Amino acid sequence: MSGTNRGWVLESYPIGDDFDAALKLRDIAMPDPGPNQMLVRSLYLSLDPANRGWMMMPTYIPQVPLGATMWGFVLGRVESSNVPGFAPGDLVSGFGAWADYCLMGAEMANKVPDLGGFPLYAAQSLFGLSGGTAYVGVLDIAKAKAGEVFVISGAAGSVGTLAGQIAKIQGCTVIGIAGSPEKCKWLVDELGFDHAIDYRRENVAERLGELCPEGVDIYFDNVGGPLTNSIATKMALHGRIVLCGSMAKFDNPGPELDLGAILLNRVVMTGFILIDHFDRLDVANAALAKWVGEGKLKHHADIVEGLEHTVEAFGRLFTSGAPHKGKLLVRVDPAAN
Amino acid sequence: MSGTNRGWVLESYPIGDDFDAALKLRDIAMPDPGPNQMLVRSLYLSLDPANRGWMMMPTYIPQVPLGATMWGFVLGRVESSNVPGFAPGDLVSGFGAWADYCLMGAEMANKVPDLGGFPLYAAQSLFGLSGGTAYVGVLDIAKAKAGEVFVISGAAGSVGTLAGQIAKIQGCTVIGIAGSPEKCKWLVDELGFDHAIDYRRENVAERLGELCPEGVDIYFDNVGGPLTNSIATKMALHGRIVLCGSMAKFDNPGPELDLGAILLNRVVMTGFILIDHFDRLDVANAALAKWVGEGKLKHHADIVEGLEHTVEAFGRLFTSGAPHKGKLLVRVDPAAN
Repeated sequence: MSGTNRGWVLESYPIGDDFDAALKLRDIAMPDPGPNQMLVRSLYLSLDPANRGWMMMPTYIPQVPLGATMWGFVLGRVESSNVPGFAPGDLVSGFGAWADYCLMGAEMANKVPDLGGFPLYAAQSLFGLSGGTAYVGVLDIAKAKAGEVFVISGAAGSVGTLAGQIAKIQGCTVIGIAGSPEKCKWLVDELGFDHAIDYRRENVAERLGELCPEGVDIYFDNVGGPLTNSIATKMALHGRIVLCGSMAKFDNPGPELDLGAILLNRVVMTGFILIDHFDRLDVANAALAKWVGEGKLKHHADIVEGLEHTVEAFGRLFTSGAPHKGKLLVRVDPAAN
Repeated sequence: MSGTNRGWVLESYPIGDDFDAALKLRDIAMPDPGPNQMLVRSLYLSLDPANRGWMMMPTYIPQVPLGATMWGFVLGRVESSNVPGFAPGDLVSGFGAWADYCLMGAEMANKVPDLGGFPLYAAQSLFGLSGGTAYVGVLDIAKAKAGEVFVISGAAGSVGTLAGQIAKIQGCTVIGIAGSPEKCKWLVDELGFDHAIDYRRENVAERLGELCPEGVDIYFDNVGGPLTNSIATKMALHGRIVLCGSMAKFDNPGPELDLGAILLNRVVMTGFILIDHFDRLDVANAALAKWVGEGKLKHHADIVEGLEHTVEAFGRLFTSGAPHKGKLLVRVDPAAN
């Protein structure tokens, strides 16, 4: 296929959170799908803290090589396909790139199921990776039960908003940790969290001591860094920590956790990445849709218009005071709903 | 009861590992058992790294107060008893003090079961806390399975020697970490470990990379400190870390673990103290006795003669090069077998 294509090319590895210097929007070649690949026209891009890790080092995938169009999760429409079962016009969600058009491999793409009354972007803001991570993390890994104290960091983010509400649905007392007074107020007033703590303006360990003197049963950790250590000291006996993200790591190299509190309170800490649990996505999606239908769960997307604003928007993920709440998306096709 | 009694009195809190300055052997009063207590004549004292923690801070028990006769695990004979079911002459094992005579409360004492052909000190070197910790840690917490790579620190200590051998019985490849060439040689030649690494003279992460390039399935952590972080980087996908001790903590304050490796390899880390699992002791003791009878398990006690050498011996627990191997005990009654 011929045509014009633009993509964010990784021209140098970012220093700190200076993504502007590292990523440049360029006219790039229209990719040509090889065996078991398809060409996808982007409708939405999902911006995720994990993307930063992919640039920095090998993770659960190799490090993004210099010169590559930045990798990311894409919601789009198949233009041409060498993948059996995928045909032009299909809506797909999967591992692609920050570009107007990208390639998707069969093993990293899923057809978007019938979304019922949900807008298309709900495939990224509610279903799929964010909702799946929240659902599996709260129910399968943390095994949240009624009456437990559930603390979550990155609470105003895509996983945090959903996971906190799911814990609330289970009957937990939910305490969210976020980085601005606005986000904290929103978590309580709009999403129904019991409490919220502004980690930039309040002493988290002290506030937890006041809010839950019996200790934290579950800490759903989306950020890592020094906050993990503060909260570890407040765990209840036999508490559980779900280690789901480590974005604070980027700005806090070096060891962060004191093992004493883990040992003394016999805490179980579990490293969790959704890729081990894709078989649970159907169950997760069905439950998420049901809860939304019952008015128990709200999903929120912060949608940035235009591929050209991708990198500017991406930086907001790492700026606590930035106003984004819920899932951060880029609408690449202005006509997408 | 009247008579003479000597005990190690905690006169100041130790600075570093200077236990000589903190603990003094004094003539002390013969204690008088209150309701639900008994007076016990010490036969053996068990010296454990945990004792140091008890002096330093509140742990799973309150901090030892200044002026107290140092608390410890004691194997002894009941002299007089206000505890139903315990009578003078009974052999008991439990929470007492570093003294010729001490009090034991009903809730922290057990009768020593029939030891069959085992010497009396096996109640501390093989059965009870050390063997129970090794058994429950390897089987219930780590769930060690044939073919897995099992790494253990403090490998020449009371728990380490037993846990490593139990993992070997399960069919694991067992790698012990200890602090001298003599201990390493002993672990391999005498206890049948597959490999041993001298952490003071070798780069542990490098050696693990050579010995088990596929990664560590289980790390049984008896020491904490920087070693935990080194080994965490070598965990296999879905590896398990059993956090059982933190003696390295005393000399390495501050955060020690980088969470990145835990997240990326989806490791499960479990804080483990035997006090949650006392209901498993009977099963553990039966298995331990059976394995010794079958020639599959060796237990080793390093026995120091005389209450007056208690503190000198205790210091050896924190000196890697010191020659003690296996369980470190003080024989208080020279006639005890």
